[in-house]
Amino acid sequence: MAEPGVEILCVGTELLLGDILNGNARWIAQRLASLGLPHYRQTVVGDNRERLAMAAREAATRSRVLITTGGLGPTPDDLTTESLAAAFDTPLREHPDLWEEIQAKLSSGGRPVAPSNRRQAFLPEGAEVLPNPLGSAPGMIWSPQPGFTILTFPGVPSEMRAMFQETAEPWLQSQGGATGVFVSRVLRFSGIGESNLAEQVADLFEGANPTVAPYASLGDVKLRLTASASSADKAEALLDPLEAELRQRTGALCYGRDDDSLASVVLKQLKSHRQTLAVAESCTGGGIGAALTAVPGSSASFIGGVIAYSNAVKQRQLGVPSDQLERCGAVSDEVARAMAEGVRERLETDWGLAVTGIAGPGGGTSEKPVGLVHVAVAGPDGCEAAALRFGERRGRGAIQQLTQIRALDLLRLRLLVQS
Amino acid sequence: MAEPGVEILCVGTELLLGDILNGNARWIAQRLASLGLPHYRQTVVGDNRERLAMAAREAATRSRVLITTGGLGPTPDDLTTESLAAAFDTPLREHPDLWEEIQAKLSSGGRPVAPSNRRQAFLPEGAEVLPNPLGSAPGMIWSPQPGFTILTFPGVPSEMRAMFQETAEPWLQSQGGATGVFVSRVLRFSGIGESNLAEQVADLFEGANPTVAPYASLGDVKLRLTASASSADKAEALLDPLEAELRQRTGALCYGRDDDSLASVVLKQLKSHRQTLAVAESCTGGGIGAALTAVPGSSASFIGGVIAYSNAVKQRQLGVPSDQLERCGAVSDEVARAMAEGVRERLETDWGLAVTGIAGPGGGTSEKPVGLVHVAVAGPDGCEAAALRFGERRGRGAIQQLTQIRALDLLRLRLLVQS
Repeated sequence: MAEPGVEILCVGTELLLGDILNGNARWIAQRLASLGLPHYRQTVVGDNRERLAMAAREAATRSRVLITTGGLGPTPDDLTTESLAAAFDTPLREHPDLWEEIQAKLSSGGRPVAPSNRRQAFLPEGAEVLPNPLGSAPGMIWSPQPGFTILTFPGVPSEMRAMFQETAEPWLQSQGGATGVFVSRVLRFSGIGESNLAEQVADLFEGANPTVAPYASLGDVKLRLTASASSADKAEALLDPLEAELRQRTGALCYGRDDDSLASVVLKQLKSHRQTLAVAESCTGGGIGAALTAVPGSSASFIGGVIAYSNAVKQRQLGVPSDQLERCGAVSDEVARAMAEGVRERLETDWGLAVTGIAGPGGGTSEKPVGLVHVAVAGPDGCEAAALRFGERRGRGAIQQLTQIRALDLLRLRLLVQS
Repeated sequence: MAEPGVEILCVGTELLLGDILNGNARWIAQRLASLGLPHYRQTVVGDNRERLAMAAREAATRSRVLITTGGLGPTPDDLTTESLAAAFDTPLREHPDLWEEIQAKLSSGGRPVAPSNRRQAFLPEGAEVLPNPLGSAPGMIWSPQPGFTILTFPGVPSEMRAMFQETAEPWLQSQGGATGVFVSRVLRFSGIGESNLAEQVADLFEGANPTVAPYASLGDVKLRLTASASSADKAEALLDPLEAELRQRTGALCYGRDDDSLASVVLKQLKSHRQTLAVAESCTGGGIGAALTAVPGSSASFIGGVIAYSNAVKQRQLGVPSDQLERCGAVSDEVARAMAEGVRERLETDWGLAVTGIAGPGGGTSEKPVGLVHVAVAGPDGCEAAALRFGERRGRGAIQQLTQIRALDLLRLRLLVQS
């Protein structure tokens, strides 16, 4: 089942030990997607001759192009070139001009030339050099059998990226195989689970071009819309009506697109109304403020807030009445409201957002279990509060994160409907 | 060439499109390394029945255990369970108890039960449920053929990790295959770069057992110490003198071990002195408070603080004199000191930690460039301030993160030397 696709093979024991994230695979995947080249598989193997050769032979039965990263350096661990040659029973041949170039590069960089660097000038017979403008390790373009081409790149991300853009991309485009251009958009949703969202738009999953696919991470559900066409403009034109249809069906559940975050959307809403915001955070301890401050330019609307982790701070810095704390408990609609109103008044903002809850693992009771959080939004039209239950099992970090997400979403919805 | 190894198969079109980094593969790789289980290959395929089944059948010819992530959700894109069943010609069978459990979990989390969730209760005949303590998507342990076992996990990292540690690790250990026991410790350092630390301990990198290897992430440098032995106790005994030697050489630069964070170490110091802390954050917007609050039990010492993003909040909530703000500017040693002392006095704590800086991308000048941050620590013995320069190129997120790390480290060093 040879497919006209591209595969990525990343070589490095450090990947198998989990010492580093495979950022090279992700970067190449993004490039292939934007070039419109179908890419169906990524593989990682260690610095091992047999496993590397086996992975390359397997790819030759499936794909048209194999892109490798890593294993091109001068050390005994660097085995990619010789393993690929062995995989296809091809002898290595020295390229004297390449050896000259390697020596010149090392010398001009002030680095000593080691005898082991000479290994880097050997390529399989029939291979062409893929120049490395930044480092000494060259790559190659080689077709060991008809209809199957290998492109090798070093593992150092900056060198790999420069080589890929300067030499591999023009080659990949000139070779054809690209089925036009792929363009993707991501729509982001809050306040709905992945399965419920999927059911609302299930009929749209059937489309072949553009396609719609759901995915989810903690507290965040997304739909990816992808179109392929002969040009980016034509692909965008395929996506526009689909996005409009999805937005129309999902209404306020869709909070943004692509790189939007709930924080960036809320800040945009505030800015367009020339309004300001302050936060009062108990169980999140500053996480909502940090999410807002992560957005460049947030100072236009976000003024600051109070981290009211202890009850004393809730009383003194936010004016929460002590009898209310005693009567209702710190985790209650009443105290959340008093915090939101208190921070709004004291910091003189248009909006106050407050959270108080039990993030666990301790502090829960049967009446007020771990995972119970009260959120309040105080604004020009009054104050509203809501109780959220995230369940005891999720763990402290997830409860804090979900609190932050739901609180920002409640504020977003209030800002949407303000008169 | 069946090897007694473990393979990882990550399923998700978002990985092939480069939308996300494959953090799951890295995390599992780290766990396998620490369990001493040999692991020779990682594969990524998209949400595609045939390719998923093919990858699983290939793994069955090579390895003893296949660990999959992703594709266990309720949507039509989630194909892992049914594709694995098809790969080994095995019918799916419903587990009514599992369906009950899924419904109960969704209801207790306040989420509606969608008919599509029922798919998640179907497993191949002979498979056992791998419980998911955090989410609704269960995994499975299944041996489709003798000597080959598949373990499936969801793609959501928090759920995958909890399941892996609670159920997969005990199973993997009980099944043997580990080449002895590997025990690792991670020593964590602050205030020194990776290459400088490496030079201080270069001679120790030569050892074969135990081994020492450096690695680094933003603002955090680590040494991983690994020993292999016939038992965990014997491996620990190999590590003890090495850790002692490393700590002796590096002194206060080593802030902790394994799961310690700067926040957890500071909280431990405060608790042992029965002291309290408040924060005053400008450019981090609550990030230091959130890091402290992320630690369970932080309420024993962390009281809260003020997010003083605007100058008005610095004046009103922290008592920073307005003429000081005008004379010195908000990003200055003087204002950092006034913030630290102000929050310490107003929140009545033993310690006050304050940061004010320019996170960018705007707001920098030639005198006060993006990346300039002032940190102050106010305590029983007085107040100290320091200016830090992280450079303009790092970007807003990294400057905020580094500010948080260096501020907590300055507090840690002050707490270390207090009389």
